[in-house]
Amino acid sequence: MGMDVRAHIRCHGGTQVFAEHASEACGGPMRFSVFLPPAAEHQPVPVLYWLSGLTCTEENFVIKAGAQRAAAAAGLAVVAPDTSPRATGTPGEDDDWDLGTGAGFYVDATAEPWSAHYRMYSWITRELPAVVAENFPVDAGREGISGHSMGGHGALVCALREPGRYRSLSAFAPICAPTRCPWGEKAFTAYLGPDREPWAAWDACELIGAGARPPPLLVDQGLADEFLESQLKPDALEAACEATGTPLTLRRHEGYDHSYYFISSFIDDHIAHHAARLVAA
Amino acid sequence: MGMDVRAHIRCHGGTQVFAEHASEACGGPMRFSVFLPPAAEHQPVPVLYWLSGLTCTEENFVIKAGAQRAAAAAGLAVVAPDTSPRATGTPGEDDDWDLGTGAGFYVDATAEPWSAHYRMYSWITRELPAVVAENFPVDAGREGISGHSMGGHGALVCALREPGRYRSLSAFAPICAPTRCPWGEKAFTAYLGPDREPWAAWDACELIGAGARPPPLLVDQGLADEFLESQLKPDALEAACEATGTPLTLRRHEGYDHSYYFISSFIDDHIAHHAARLVAA
Repeated sequence: MGMDVRAHIRCHGGTQVFAEHASEACGGPMRFSVFLPPAAEHQPVPVLYWLSGLTCTEENFVIKAGAQRAAAAAGLAVVAPDTSPRATGTPGEDDDWDLGTGAGFYVDATAEPWSAHYRMYSWITRELPAVVAENFPVDAGREGISGHSMGGHGALVCALREPGRYRSLSAFAPICAPTRCPWGEKAFTAYLGPDREPWAAWDACELIGAGARPPPLLVDQGLADEFLESQLKPDALEAACEATGTPLTLRRHEGYDHSYYFISSFIDDHIAHHAARLVAA
Repeated sequence: MGMDVRAHIRCHGGTQVFAEHASEACGGPMRFSVFLPPAAEHQPVPVLYWLSGLTCTEENFVIKAGAQRAAAAAGLAVVAPDTSPRATGTPGEDDDWDLGTGAGFYVDATAEPWSAHYRMYSWITRELPAVVAENFPVDAGREGISGHSMGGHGALVCALREPGRYRSLSAFAPICAPTRCPWGEKAFTAYLGPDREPWAAWDACELIGAGARPPPLLVDQGLADEFLESQLKPDALEAACEATGTPLTLRRHEGYDHSYYFISSFIDDHIAHHAARLVAA
């Protein structure tokens, strides 16, 4: 599996890598970033996948979250994939900021014209981990997953659909019930088609309701988040977990918004949550 | 002194503020950011000024350096000013990335046409601290200063020209001898005129050679920095300090470049350096 390194930067005693590879799942070049902690010089390290939100690339988290400090100390690699295929030629892919480019929603699209390239789920859960394992000193048996907003939805869905695969799970301000919010309804209508029945397989609350069980789950949500009620609906996640006896640590933070200032304020807790289940485990 | 708050964001238990005021020194609106640690809710806190490098605004450091975590813990406010006046109508101000907009070089320009607006030194050392003291709970008697590249030069020069004013000083990859490097020669020719005699008053090495003494000084420099030999010249700073018996902690870091990845890797040490001299002192 070929891979091109686009940049290789010293950071917190480790290395921040930006890379690209020719993806079969998405039918074109896909970009991602990998932070390698100092420990990776001596042995394979566990890896945390970070899924970003709408409009982000593989760079936003790397620049803004300040995660490398704690990841370096914990001995955790962090992989941050891009949020969609780009420049695929799919009609309408650049028309809206919340559909197409920068808005892959971590599903495998089944509806035309998106189904040809927008297969983010297969890329994130199958192809990318194989590329990472082949090119970097990571222990593919020890994976965690996290994300923000659309990427929080992605992390929840990946972990719920792949039982036993991810040992740890967390999210910042996730879209908890995409079948019941404008962002999700728009994306699912396009990617999965207008029939709502198959949507449930890509909705964290529906998956939990249907019996899927997540690994230990930490969710942080800011109470000054402008998307809290309309798009994110943490209450729905809480209700789904309560109804099924699913353990959930949901922390609500007075005054925090939807931005990376919120993420950076609590990222250390998330790194610790994952490291406790991935490092020396 | 009027001031407009442009944004007010919860971050690490404190508040990240973006503001603007009508500057007399620069003859127009000037932007800056202020991070207030949680301790500022109870008492005035000491303040660290951060001067950014070429092309930056008041936002780059705030987004990329990851300084808020340590500043919140230490109880230190951090003020990051913009790097130049903007949209002043000065002929040529937007022609080059290393002159005019985003490139004020922290001097008071004396040459036409720059002298009307490009008076960054007066703004940074006089007017801005007064605005900050009037609008935020800071202890104006406890100030430190730091910066990166052009801003490292600015921090050194501010501290050397204002004896007793700043209690602590540090820099990342500073332009140590602007009278002897292309960036500095270009800027000083424009802002101060072609006669080199007055340039010495804005050159850290010249100021130290002439007897100025800095407060406790920490400098970090990456050895993979693409501007190391041509523009930054830490050896010249080291020589000036050695020749005059001036204490200097200069750390050279294998593999690190000129970017914010370098800054974020060592910012905690700089916050600690300043906090040790500013907090509870």
